[in-house]
Amino acid sequence: MRAFAEQVFASETKGEDVRDEISMFDVDDDCPIMHQEMAHHLHTEDDAEKRRRTFPHSSPHPQQVDTPTYLEVPDFQRVAIIGDYASGVTMDDFELSCKGVYRALTIREKYMRLAYQRFPLTTSEYLREIEGGSFKTEDLVQPGEERRSGGSFRGVISVTIRVPPCQSYAFASIHQSSQPLQSKGRTPLIPRTCQRIWDMSRTPQPKTYTHRRLKFLMSKFNVHEMLNEMEEMKELKLNPHRDFYNCRKVDTHIHAAACMNQKHLLRFIKRSYRVDAERVVHKLNGKEVTMKELFESLHLHPYDLTVDSLDVHAGRQTFQRFDKFNAKYNPVGASELRDLYMKTENHIGGEYFATIIKEVASDLEDAKYQYAEPRLSIYGCNPTEWHKLSSWFVKHRVFSPNLKWMIQIPRIYDIFRGRNFVPHFGKMLENIFLPVFNATIDPQSHPELSIFLQHVTGFDSVDDESKHSGHMFCTKSPKPQEWDVGKNPSYTYYIYYMYANIAVLNQLRRERGMNTFTFRPHCGEAGAITHLLAAFMTADNISHGLNLKKSPVLQYLYFLTQIPIAMSPLSNNSLFLEYAKNPLLEFHKKGLVVSLSTDDPMQFHYTKEPLMEEYAIAAQVFKLSTCDMCEISRNSVLQSAMSHEEKSHFLGQNYLKEGPEGNDIRKTNVAQIRMAYRYETLCYELNLIKEGVKSD
Amino acid sequence: MRAFAEQVFASETKGEDVRDEISMFDVDDDCPIMHQEMAHHLHTEDDAEKRRRTFPHSSPHPQQVDTPTYLEVPDFQRVAIIGDYASGVTMDDFELSCKGVYRALTIREKYMRLAYQRFPLTTSEYLREIEGGSFKTEDLVQPGEERRSGGSFRGVISVTIRVPPCQSYAFASIHQSSQPLQSKGRTPLIPRTCQRIWDMSRTPQPKTYTHRRLKFLMSKFNVHEMLNEMEEMKELKLNPHRDFYNCRKVDTHIHAAACMNQKHLLRFIKRSYRVDAERVVHKLNGKEVTMKELFESLHLHPYDLTVDSLDVHAGRQTFQRFDKFNAKYNPVGASELRDLYMKTENHIGGEYFATIIKEVASDLEDAKYQYAEPRLSIYGCNPTEWHKLSSWFVKHRVFSPNLKWMIQIPRIYDIFRGRNFVPHFGKMLENIFLPVFNATIDPQSHPELSIFLQHVTGFDSVDDESKHSGHMFCTKSPKPQEWDVGKNPSYTYYIYYMYANIAVLNQLRRERGMNTFTFRPHCGEAGAITHLLAAFMTADNISHGLNLKKSPVLQYLYFLTQIPIAMSPLSNNSLFLEYAKNPLLEFHKKGLVVSLSTDDPMQFHYTKEPLMEEYAIAAQVFKLSTCDMCEISRNSVLQSAMSHEEKSHFLGQNYLKEGPEGNDIRKTNVAQIRMAYRYETLCYELNLIKEGVKSD
Repeated sequence: MRAFAEQVFASETKGEDVRDEISMFDVDDDCPIMHQEMAHHLHTEDDAEKRRRTFPHSSPHPQQVDTPTYLEVPDFQRVAIIGDYASGVTMDDFELSCKGVYRALTIREKYMRLAYQRFPLTTSEYLREIEGGSFKTEDLVQPGEERRSGGSFRGVISVTIRVPPCQSYAFASIHQSSQPLQSKGRTPLIPRTCQRIWDMSRTPQPKTYTHRRLKFLMSKFNVHEMLNEMEEMKELKLNPHRDFYNCRKVDTHIHAAACMNQKHLLRFIKRSYRVDAERVVHKLNGKEVTMKELFESLHLHPYDLTVDSLDVHAGRQTFQRFDKFNAKYNPVGASELRDLYMKTENHIGGEYFATIIKEVASDLEDAKYQYAEPRLSIYGCNPTEWHKLSSWFVKHRVFSPNLKWMIQIPRIYDIFRGRNFVPHFGKMLENIFLPVFNATIDPQSHPELSIFLQHVTGFDSVDDESKHSGHMFCTKSPKPQEWDVGKNPSYTYYIYYMYANIAVLNQLRRERGMNTFTFRPHCGEAGAITHLLAAFMTADNISHGLNLKKSPVLQYLYFLTQIPIAMSPLSNNSLFLEYAKNPLLEFHKKGLVVSLSTDDPMQFHYTKEPLMEEYAIAAQVFKLSTCDMCEISRNSVLQSAMSHEEKSHFLGQNYLKEGPEGNDIRKTNVAQIRMAYRYETLCYELNLIKEGVKSD
Repeated sequence: MRAFAEQVFASETKGEDVRDEISMFDVDDDCPIMHQEMAHHLHTEDDAEKRRRTFPHSSPHPQQVDTPTYLEVPDFQRVAIIGDYASGVTMDDFELSCKGVYRALTIREKYMRLAYQRFPLTTSEYLREIEGGSFKTEDLVQPGEERRSGGSFRGVISVTIRVPPCQSYAFASIHQSSQPLQSKGRTPLIPRTCQRIWDMSRTPQPKTYTHRRLKFLMSKFNVHEMLNEMEEMKELKLNPHRDFYNCRKVDTHIHAAACMNQKHLLRFIKRSYRVDAERVVHKLNGKEVTMKELFESLHLHPYDLTVDSLDVHAGRQTFQRFDKFNAKYNPVGASELRDLYMKTENHIGGEYFATIIKEVASDLEDAKYQYAEPRLSIYGCNPTEWHKLSSWFVKHRVFSPNLKWMIQIPRIYDIFRGRNFVPHFGKMLENIFLPVFNATIDPQSHPELSIFLQHVTGFDSVDDESKHSGHMFCTKSPKPQEWDVGKNPSYTYYIYYMYANIAVLNQLRRERGMNTFTFRPHCGEAGAITHLLAAFMTADNISHGLNLKKSPVLQYLYFLTQIPIAMSPLSNNSLFLEYAKNPLLEFHKKGLVVSLSTDDPMQFHYTKEPLMEEYAIAAQVFKLSTCDMCEISRNSVLQSAMSHEEKSHFLGQNYLKEGPEGNDIRKTNVAQIRMAYRYETLCYELNLIKEGVKSD
């Protein structure tokens, strides 16, 4: 049996394209007979019984992990490996790899807990088992909801802030004075642990081991699909009312400034001109001008404008050219129009931008089952940005039940430093975080910001990752106040200081019964692999993640910790990676938690429903089944910052439970067989780690 | 210079994948520098002048073909080949190939003229030049509009039909009595000429020659694109009002029975139940039942129905399984529901089907710029079908300015013969065509059918091409009345008899001032290459055409005769060919006239606007430029059966002219540079043929 299994996996590995890591995990899909034969050999009816009789003690992994029984999961065919296979590596390598993985898992668990971000229950349970302890419910790590009991803005104690408060250490030291934070209120020394995981991810043994495990996960899913596809479909067919169209989906990654499609923007511009031609809308060289005069100065008449002349859509010219892509944000290439229509701060107080967003929100409300998490920018260029943004938000009531707001911080210190807007990186951090600390400590003095912060659910870090990614953040890196050179800090440097501030901020806010924030950076769209490592230690979830293709160790860690990844294959297709080469399908098959998002409908999408376009194209190109699509939709809700109430309503009351128990098929339209497969597969991999660490 | 050109083409050919014909025409896109260098070498400013000075007589092809001047075409960079290159084949092979191609072109021209179908002006002009004659405008072959002067139903002379009228020869012999047809009223002896082209398409010399020409066309377009992409875009940006969204596009291939998307059908079923639960809608085992009873007999309640349980969407299970795909036409797997909702003949007189179609039409009218050409079925099973169909059409007023109607004939003689519905194939032809002849000859006796025929624009031939494609139609094939075996006739046999009847019918109808029909079969979706040959000789335009990949000779002939091809990559993706492997992009680049169509939105599409979904996905996956998309839209209008007035309105008054003169950029949003490139490229290839034939 073991020889057979090895033979099967050897033949699986044979087709492997070893030219580079990128194509390393492709599994040839063209030999269904082999899969079927393998399944046939490894599996017969009432298999569990028979196996128990035949091999009472030979399996190193307890049978109950492989074939648990649940309420309400129909029978399905399982793929089981009998015999001590251990991924075809030597016992020494196996143990070494498992220990490395175990350490990495505990590190993420610790940092997630510090920042009130998510860590999967199942993985925690296995970690406790490895440590010989037992899992306690209060250890469950979940992104924090505000404490309902606390109410809003009551009993806030004023805390004096000592300068310089721009740096996380400084913030941390403040909060150590307050009781509940004492035990966990220290910001972590990430650089050192970071280096440790980094070294591990480049050691040959863990690389081989995780690579083989990922190959296995892919093959296993292919077999599962072949065996159970019809059974999964049967569950969905018997599920009344619910289908892909009316299960909830969240656009987990979208920029507010490009959340409308190009045709929508065009129509809005034309409409605004018909109504407001004589309105003063802009200051041109110090002189107030009407909209008519503004368009005249651009030698344009909106009546003649077309999608082509608007020129905000990404095309072949933008591929691998993030700079050109950024220029596409300017309608007709005119930054004046960007200011007028897509900014919160301008002569008309961001009115048009607010109206466009409200129109997009209204379309989502009409579609009923679609939600979005738009990002608004805070640049850190000056300390009044938060005030202005929240005034805009409150004044225009840019609110919709279908929108959850996030703040994106562009990594453009170098530009501000170059123009002498900030003296050092510490000042930028201060501009970004100090107002939020102040509003948290003394909400009554910052009423609008406090209201706005109730709607903010998290922070994103954005910019072209292919730039500035050389420098690796380490213990010797200068402190933010000392970073006064013109050069931009590295991605990891940004990430660390954002995380540290968010972590401390969350501790403070949780203590006061306020909502906390998740850290959800753009990561792995391009650039160095270290980005993905930094996010592994700090981020609740990420956007893009393409470069996980290049590191089997990190990819396996993202799988074990079930870090959600908001993927945008249409955006990638225009910028970094051809559609057919997108790893979305591969990640999904292996069991990484992927969701679909649009990124920038203005630049990438053609139809009136960009999120549906994204799903439709993925379904067509990757031939996703309904169950796949509904699973991705479910992932998107889980990844999102929807409230506990909303998630309970959309996914079922037990959504926090992992495995089939946490799934309510009547709401999600995800087959219980699929849920059981995912859960058992995760447990099996975690169990291997446990065996590897314990066997020492 | 010649050595250089050969070197360039040699390196182009090097990357060629020679495993089979299918991948034979792929050009590696990854060496832009080479293209650019080549263009740089071959082209400089005021090139024509310089070249005229340097090589006054060395070029075998006159300069005026390469660089004509037009009104209103901006300057652009042209790719020119200097020196007598002749595609790298010997002079003998070149001449042999050109003669074969010339013969094939004249054959299509003849048959198109006989049936009042299209043949390109430019190609005709070159054919006349080769023959030493000159082109006369009255020779222009275009699909026939009814003669406006004739009026409707006036002055019709009754003609006695002699039996057996099922066969085209018989029809032809009738019409020889009427004067205007005498000269051209003979149905052609297709089998013999067919064999001649078929032999040619398999001869090595033409295969090599056409293969090389097609490679050249591909490379030439790639270079053109690289040099002029920005210039083309500039034209579009300067074109006021018009962009991709508001240029007209026609869904050139869609089946009426699946013209709604799955969600639309689901909603309609639920709505009909809410209103009509107690209505008698069906006869079950001879007993009349209400809708409620019908659903009860199926153990269903429409309230619980979902897209999943409806199960009309193609999935992975349908790939390469046309049989399973056909079964998807039955909602919930129940043919009773297909009868009730998607048939013109049923207990409620096809009311629901008519309503659904009118809803689809209303969506198209709202979208304003989208049109469709749905197919309704005539089976030829009994002679009353036309009467019933036209009654349905007239009764329910299934009419919309955004719909043009076609009749599809399923190739399922074998099924009817097996059930003894028809005694021989001739009877089936009689059932299909005799009612139309009768209504043409005596419209007043067939008022409803006559009205319906005014709305019918053409005939389609449909079914799984991968079946029954072995037999090659030849002069020894039995006559239709003699075909009384259970076996289905071959594709070519069907095509020939449909063409012959349509040709004679068109002659008769044209003579009486009525609208004529075009023959637009499904062709080359699967099965033998002979299908494409048969269509080359008989069809105005085709649907699918995928198999042109496999025959360079036919592909080149389709290019030279500019036969429009309605492609449906999403349909292919579910049935026969993965999306990324679809030849749409390749055909488009080479200059074949391709349009995009949905085929069956119910089975393949997800969004509310299936045609936009089709365009969006093609644009994303193939990275089409706006100019590409607008060119494809323009092709779709040209291919469609829109009236002369509509085409003039949508494409510009001169749309019948070929080249940039026929394009009105204000209406089509296609760059004049692109039009000039296409026109000059076609002329260049035709000129080569002329040189090859004349040099003898």
